[in-house]
Amino acid sequence: MKLDGLDTPSVLVEVDIMTANLDRLAGYCREHRLNLRPHVKTHKIPELAQLQVRKGAVGVTVAKLGEAEVMVDGGIEDVLLAYPVYGEIKWERLVSLARRARISVALDSLEVAQGISRHAREAGVRIPILVEFDTGMRRCGLAIARESIGVLERIVELPALDYEGLLIYPGHFLVDPERRNQLLTLENRQLSTLLGLLDDARIPYPVISASSTPTAYMSHQFDNINEVRPGTYIFNDRNTIGCQAAGLEDCAVSVLSTVVSTSVPGKAAIDGGSKTFSSDKFLSGDGVGFGHVMGDPGAVVEYLSEEHGHLVLANAIRRYRVGDRVRVIPNHVCACVNMHNRIYGIRDDEVVTEWRVSARGAVQ
Amino acid sequence: MKLDGLDTPSVLVEVDIMTANLDRLAGYCREHRLNLRPHVKTHKIPELAQLQVRKGAVGVTVAKLGEAEVMVDGGIEDVLLAYPVYGEIKWERLVSLARRARISVALDSLEVAQGISRHAREAGVRIPILVEFDTGMRRCGLAIARESIGVLERIVELPALDYEGLLIYPGHFLVDPERRNQLLTLENRQLSTLLGLLDDARIPYPVISASSTPTAYMSHQFDNINEVRPGTYIFNDRNTIGCQAAGLEDCAVSVLSTVVSTSVPGKAAIDGGSKTFSSDKFLSGDGVGFGHVMGDPGAVVEYLSEEHGHLVLANAIRRYRVGDRVRVIPNHVCACVNMHNRIYGIRDDEVVTEWRVSARGAVQ
Repeated sequence: MKLDGLDTPSVLVEVDIMTANLDRLAGYCREHRLNLRPHVKTHKIPELAQLQVRKGAVGVTVAKLGEAEVMVDGGIEDVLLAYPVYGEIKWERLVSLARRARISVALDSLEVAQGISRHAREAGVRIPILVEFDTGMRRCGLAIARESIGVLERIVELPALDYEGLLIYPGHFLVDPERRNQLLTLENRQLSTLLGLLDDARIPYPVISASSTPTAYMSHQFDNINEVRPGTYIFNDRNTIGCQAAGLEDCAVSVLSTVVSTSVPGKAAIDGGSKTFSSDKFLSGDGVGFGHVMGDPGAVVEYLSEEHGHLVLANAIRRYRVGDRVRVIPNHVCACVNMHNRIYGIRDDEVVTEWRVSARGAVQ
Repeated sequence: MKLDGLDTPSVLVEVDIMTANLDRLAGYCREHRLNLRPHVKTHKIPELAQLQVRKGAVGVTVAKLGEAEVMVDGGIEDVLLAYPVYGEIKWERLVSLARRARISVALDSLEVAQGISRHAREAGVRIPILVEFDTGMRRCGLAIARESIGVLERIVELPALDYEGLLIYPGHFLVDPERRNQLLTLENRQLSTLLGLLDDARIPYPVISASSTPTAYMSHQFDNINEVRPGTYIFNDRNTIGCQAAGLEDCAVSVLSTVVSTSVPGKAAIDGGSKTFSSDKFLSGDGVGFGHVMGDPGAVVEYLSEEHGHLVLANAIRRYRVGDRVRVIPNHVCACVNMHNRIYGIRDDEVVTEWRVSARGAVQ
């Protein structure tokens, strides 16, 4: 099918750019002897997870049990659930899944560890565990401090858990390269302190898992880490471009939209709004706008209502007429893809494949 | 099932509050002889649309064809598609649906009207049409000006379309009651100008459709309107409360969540993030936070990552421990419900029903 035959709004993925993104990072990880464990929350598509594994990933990372279940159903054999799952229903699902594939969990509290341990022991399975530490994101993770080592020691001793090492999430690195380099210095100081505390307590750390897309190609500069978990890099997006972790030419994703109204002078409305793009902001740039209009960076996607995107055309370089089609790069591709049941792979103006976003809407 | 048995995150609807919300607005509309045509983008659930019709709604409003299709499949016989649908594929779907139910369309351009007219004529169906005018939202809608009347006249003359009147959307009324009253004066001045232009051109306006939830109970003060299309009123949300169009006691919806991490001092992370609540902002208030923590208004949902909500507890009145459950009222319920495949009706601590969000993910 030609692109013209596709209805709008539709999420498009340029297959050749995506493949190049996958190959480039896989090559980098091989070169630096880093295990690559891509975060599949970005696409939620088992077929793309399989492709990542075929290109050398050791397994995948997920953000919720529902995603883990869809990935295991889709043939993925090694899944890191980078989320402190809590509750009887979830622990039951977790140990049940652990009978079918290798499921490790990252957590940061004794409560979560005890729950998983109890259920794993009853089910007769073992769950590999990473313990999360906070290196500056201030979101989750134990503090890098002597008090935390006691918690870690108690987690390590719990039955039916296999403690494997540490997880950090440098999500606060979604900034320009110069500031990223400053943060790296702090990060390595923190990591060094943490490993010192562990050495003192004679706790090993065979795995140190880190990285996000903005830091993906700096991973070799994070001292001692041996696993990376970027997600967005498969497609990239406006935020990745904004923080200069990718160029416009590396961005595989866009939303094909139709201009549906030009009644308001100086504006145009397209048929993609917050239920197509998500309301996620342009965090890595000036904060303005909800997407990048391909071929017309002066057209500002000023705001989104649920099913409309509102373009302000004061600095646009082209005219917009009702029925015109435009392609818009979303601010945050993970949130955008999560809005769609299907996305489309293209090569030039040909639709070459279609993927079902299988884990979309999966329960936590 | 008891609420304790429900996994998190889950969207809860207090059935008795919802019913009271529906009854109150239905009563108001009867009293003021206004046709009620609720916008079902809020819930996307045919069973709730049916309930609205049983309580006196003349039909429903939808924002996209996919929603219209799900509603007609679910037995709704009168649907207003308040969206200027453009494109051959959509026009085909539209006329096909028009064979099964009454489907009217709101539009603001000759291009959209011509496309629908051509397809309707070929299919041998007639499509009722409302023409949208812009009264200040500056999103879509023809300008209230003499030049627009020529466009309207050409739309009215198109074959296979039944022009029925006007549509306006006072979406910019999501502000406090005092400013809403100021806007009302402007709105009525605009409406008066518009109707004067139509009278001069001898164009009738049997239907004047307006209203949103913030203006729902002011609808009788909008001169000459005879149809209202609120959506959010069925549940209400933090934005509705923020603009004082509803009280906390009128809010039927919350997200049941579990505290999953308290590792970072002064904070707690819950298991609902932007893929549970949406990233929609607190537009009607101070802009701070992504939800209202029930029973603890001092706890601020500072920001959302995809699967975490980050509570800042500096002004909280209770402690948060891993495993505690909290209920959080979302900023924007339409965007929140759109994230879920199922939502749950509760009465006290009993889960009394479960609805499938059937039109979630429906294509435009």
